[in-house]
Amino acid sequence: MKALYFDGKELLIKDVPIPVRVQGEALIKVLLAGICNTDIEICKGYMSFTGVLGHEFVGIVEDSEDKRLIGKRVVGEINCPCYECELCRAGKTNHCPNRTVLGIYQRNGVFAKYTTLPIRNLHIVPDSVPDEVAVFTEPVAACYRIPEQVRLKPTDVVVVLGDGKMGQLVSQVIMPMVSKLVCVGKHDEKMELLRNLGIEVYKFCEGSIPFRADVVIDVTGNPHALEFALNIVKPQGTIVLKSTVADYFKINLSKAVVDEINIIGSRCGPFPPAIKALAEGRVKVHQLISGIYSIADGLRAFEKAMDRENLKILIKLD
Amino acid sequence: MKALYFDGKELLIKDVPIPVRVQGEALIKVLLAGICNTDIEICKGYMSFTGVLGHEFVGIVEDSEDKRLIGKRVVGEINCPCYECELCRAGKTNHCPNRTVLGIYQRNGVFAKYTTLPIRNLHIVPDSVPDEVAVFTEPVAACYRIPEQVRLKPTDVVVVLGDGKMGQLVSQVIMPMVSKLVCVGKHDEKMELLRNLGIEVYKFCEGSIPFRADVVIDVTGNPHALEFALNIVKPQGTIVLKSTVADYFKINLSKAVVDEINIIGSRCGPFPPAIKALAEGRVKVHQLISGIYSIADGLRAFEKAMDRENLKILIKLD
Repeated sequence: MKALYFDGKELLIKDVPIPVRVQGEALIKVLLAGICNTDIEICKGYMSFTGVLGHEFVGIVEDSEDKRLIGKRVVGEINCPCYECELCRAGKTNHCPNRTVLGIYQRNGVFAKYTTLPIRNLHIVPDSVPDEVAVFTEPVAACYRIPEQVRLKPTDVVVVLGDGKMGQLVSQVIMPMVSKLVCVGKHDEKMELLRNLGIEVYKFCEGSIPFRADVVIDVTGNPHALEFALNIVKPQGTIVLKSTVADYFKINLSKAVVDEINIIGSRCGPFPPAIKALAEGRVKVHQLISGIYSIADGLRAFEKAMDRENLKILIKLD
Repeated sequence: MKALYFDGKELLIKDVPIPVRVQGEALIKVLLAGICNTDIEICKGYMSFTGVLGHEFVGIVEDSEDKRLIGKRVVGEINCPCYECELCRAGKTNHCPNRTVLGIYQRNGVFAKYTTLPIRNLHIVPDSVPDEVAVFTEPVAACYRIPEQVRLKPTDVVVVLGDGKMGQLVSQVIMPMVSKLVCVGKHDEKMELLRNLGIEVYKFCEGSIPFRADVVIDVTGNPHALEFALNIVKPQGTIVLKSTVADYFKINLSKAVVDEINIIGSRCGPFPPAIKALAEGRVKVHQLISGIYSIADGLRAFEKAMDRENLKILIKLD
């Protein structure tokens, strides 16, 4: 089967064998997959991954020990833990040191006709949710990680930094939970999409925010956003770092000490609330799709995904 | 009266008038005061402070509206808030934007025969606690800020980075609260002081720690310690930043995101548990006193305080 493959140096379309499921795993026919910024970071060397890229998908179970799953449409959690180590036993399976991660670490991903994942990772998608909505489950789940980590209060003022894919999703997920949510963006069209959803937006410019936030969520993918975040967060406030940037940068953290700021990293989140929000239309994603490409056109799809004017690029497998 | 005064350029012994207490304040005769690293940072320009330095002290109330206080030996909290703003009303008085701070911001400090502080800031010292112990109340209170912010569990492994004044105090305060506390130091004599108190110590060297910590407390005063902390903290662990360093430095925070690390700034803490721990001898401080100087000898006292071989330098006012 054709796969979008990163060989450690370059991204290519490569013929790879159909994966064989091991015990406890399902063989999944991928229907639709999404390109994430992490995929782009991997092509720059992040995680030293080589293999089939891709971790956002919706597919159909082709084979599984659990026969009830066969033929079901599913989405899948990307971390495959050992369930035996200290961290797994403490319930922190997403941090298992022995884990593989779909299309990111030691496990081939979903930019190919077939993939495999442990049955425990799968969640059935309600029939009412179309593929092009279900494919957003993984990034929406990552948004729901934030209220798992930070106690958001109904009186909180929240600022989301970044109007890209994640900024669009985080803003929608968090807005109903707090008294005021403002997304700070740089791109007029993306800001317009947020405005159309009733989300307050501010165009980024130093000193542009006339209020202070209880919580700032950084999804810019730009490490320098932390300094901006420190300047707009209230004393004893929280800054959530949502995007991995594998770069060194310069920062002065004395304000974090004096103002007792809490800076917290945030990664993968729970699938069930994400599926529910997508099914109920509380998180809207159609407006975020900037293009759908075949796997044969995968390299062009990646080029489009790297263009900052675009939002989500999908890959259709069939 | 003679005062240790920072004029914005240099530290000098200056004759200043005895302060006049305003309503709500007490006039305090300073008995003994301690030099803190913050005083040294101020002499490098931190907080743009000019005036009488010093914020760690024990003294006797000379005059006060509350006549019961007169003649009492007291220590005093350093933040003088407005009690009227939004943050004060939310109970976050230490973060009041209108606050003055003793010897740090808009308020003369304690390196002089007399000082003033709001009555609300004062805590009476039990007779059993000698001056040279009571003078440590403020830094010990800052250690008790940590368990106010971070839920320490009896099963936690904690690493304190730094064997200086604060490292010595933090280690003593936190050790009884957790299953394992290790202080990582660089100075043999300081590490020996900790060992004598039954505290486990490791000499600093990259990769020297054969375990991972639930909580890392950085009191090194060196911003590069954050990178070391990130390498030894468990996934979903906490790093407490306890020392203000007004410097830019280079850091890569991708590990904080992937491992969902919580980095939290920590400043001033509650006085009552500090006084209690000092009175009960649970926090020992005599071994930390590297010298006691008169105010006339204040410049030499500062030189000694800047010497990394020394721990606490005290100034005796009489």
